[in-house]
Amino acid sequence: MRVCDLAPAHIRAISPYQPGKPISELAREMGLAEASIVKLASNENPLGIGERTRAAINASLADIARYPDGNGFELKDALCRRYGVKMSQIVLGNGSNDILEMAAGAFLGPDRDAVYAQHAFAVYPLATQAAGARGIEVPAKNFGHDLDAMLAAITPATRVIFIANPNNPTGTFVPGPELEAFLARVPAEVLVVLDEAYTEYLAPAQRYDAIAWLERFPNLLISRTFSKAYGLAGLRVGYGLGSPEVIDLLNRVRQPFNVTSVGLAAAAAALFDDDFLQRSFEMNLAGMAQLTEGFARLGLDWIPSAGNFLTVKVGDGAKVNAGLLRQGVIVRPIAAYGMPEWLRVSIGLESENARFLEALPAALA
Amino acid sequence: MRVCDLAPAHIRAISPYQPGKPISELAREMGLAEASIVKLASNENPLGIGERTRAAINASLADIARYPDGNGFELKDALCRRYGVKMSQIVLGNGSNDILEMAAGAFLGPDRDAVYAQHAFAVYPLATQAAGARGIEVPAKNFGHDLDAMLAAITPATRVIFIANPNNPTGTFVPGPELEAFLARVPAEVLVVLDEAYTEYLAPAQRYDAIAWLERFPNLLISRTFSKAYGLAGLRVGYGLGSPEVIDLLNRVRQPFNVTSVGLAAAAAALFDDDFLQRSFEMNLAGMAQLTEGFARLGLDWIPSAGNFLTVKVGDGAKVNAGLLRQGVIVRPIAAYGMPEWLRVSIGLESENARFLEALPAALA
Repeated sequence: MRVCDLAPAHIRAISPYQPGKPISELAREMGLAEASIVKLASNENPLGIGERTRAAINASLADIARYPDGNGFELKDALCRRYGVKMSQIVLGNGSNDILEMAAGAFLGPDRDAVYAQHAFAVYPLATQAAGARGIEVPAKNFGHDLDAMLAAITPATRVIFIANPNNPTGTFVPGPELEAFLARVPAEVLVVLDEAYTEYLAPAQRYDAIAWLERFPNLLISRTFSKAYGLAGLRVGYGLGSPEVIDLLNRVRQPFNVTSVGLAAAAAALFDDDFLQRSFEMNLAGMAQLTEGFARLGLDWIPSAGNFLTVKVGDGAKVNAGLLRQGVIVRPIAAYGMPEWLRVSIGLESENARFLEALPAALA
Repeated sequence: MRVCDLAPAHIRAISPYQPGKPISELAREMGLAEASIVKLASNENPLGIGERTRAAINASLADIARYPDGNGFELKDALCRRYGVKMSQIVLGNGSNDILEMAAGAFLGPDRDAVYAQHAFAVYPLATQAAGARGIEVPAKNFGHDLDAMLAAITPATRVIFIANPNNPTGTFVPGPELEAFLARVPAEVLVVLDEAYTEYLAPAQRYDAIAWLERFPNLLISRTFSKAYGLAGLRVGYGLGSPEVIDLLNRVRQPFNVTSVGLAAAAAALFDDDFLQRSFEMNLAGMAQLTEGFARLGLDWIPSAGNFLTVKVGDGAKVNAGLLRQGVIVRPIAAYGMPEWLRVSIGLESENARFLEALPAALA
């Protein structure tokens, strides 16, 4: 018997997350110049980062040989000032992916269940599986979360429910009051992980304040990221907000230096760059209009999205994706999300959106 | 019943890793200027980083809003060229801490055991506990690993043995031939995690080539880091080398974007900066002499070290540590390692070592 044969069966059964293809990889594969490639595959901020964030990054490089502050004092302090929470209500993550995995690591395990929606973020089932727990996938309603069905799916062994709002990859959105009513009905012994990775892209009329709910719901964990609107995907910074008891448990499974010193400094600066966030929001709005008009012209269906991406029905997703790749355009096929007829496209710069729309007819043909 | 009360007992029992105190934290606590503080607590490289590494970091910042390459092609390619391994033999980590946790996550679990030595790195028991497995601590011999006793401690449920060489925090070293003989005696169904975080500091006569052993021992996983000699502690980059089967399992529990794009670029550059590594080695050798001469003058015992740190017997470690902190000198108390009479001090710049040696008599008094 060899060691790998003896790894737990649930580990051997994991099929790892498939990320969006990096520009460098497509360039190698297709012999294309990197500069000629448009990547609209990972819901990144096409504006990059703001000036004050760049300055904070540069300053942080002076001490790069030092370990990061494992407690993340400066960034937590910034989050306290921004959101009126206490230090003890914050856990920092290597991206919000890390927050999701900590929740699974701290609350799941063999003989425990997690509930999540069909077409929801792939990391929910993966983190559940890595913890040796059972995942319960609840059929979607109009590509979004069916909260009543999710409540009904809770078993005595359920310890975690994952909710993405807006959802990735479908962009669907649950209004705040519905979420709040849902929380009031979830049993106290089930952790609700509310993944708000795209919350900064919500239209003003959609916005709601989940942080205000923490007081009433000690079983709520809000997960957020600096990888999307804040433009820091390369630096991997996310955070979780919850009751001190939940946060304390997450910190027990957190890797001691899970966030880089550069990431900590950059995020603390980005958090207060309201101008940059506003510009990012407006550019996203314009790009959303540009893309949906393009889809309409081509007679394509799409799912209305509250995020910085759109999911569009193209027929044979794999074929159309290959056709786009040949033209140097990277989007995300989502067959692994049970949507083989659809592609997810991130909203980019006006010129990037245009390149994608120009390439689309040939890929569809 | 509330959700936290229902977290698995082994999670609720975890007592998190205590990192070295950051300079900023001591400055806040003591009202000291950061520039006046000497930190010799986390075995960092006092030279910082080399010029070519700095250039690679700066170049990587242009794309900071993009997700990192989750497959780490460029850094893996660099490791292949440097060490003659195949891509499939490499897993990248958010520091080598991540490699250790992946090994625990992929191979341990309830009803499984891990074996490690007394006075060995604190993350071995923590990662074991987080996986819900049982830890077997084997008494040290002269503060180092007792390999025969570790072999004898293996049970039918043992899936992982952690070996640190050199060991942290004691600096003890097992010669290569002894390790190789040990590997030949470990059952094939037990993963040997050989933690070589400090291997770049070995004297030429001590060096051995564990990578050459991978062919014969598919149950060997070598863990290394860019946080020590390479000066990249703030960026969190480590790597594991093993058989493709072991690496494949680790990749199943690896977070998809566990290393930042800046870290990937920096590490790929640092790997070939032999001049910087040589200067770091020589400075460490000189600092080792400086500190041991100082200890001898003060009549203090120390443990001969193969790393970039020394462990010195001071009597009441907590008291002496407090006396050093008051003078703005941060070292590492190691009572949590079962060594309350000792302090671990990292080897710093000549001026930093001198500051520590000057502060020591008053702290001892």
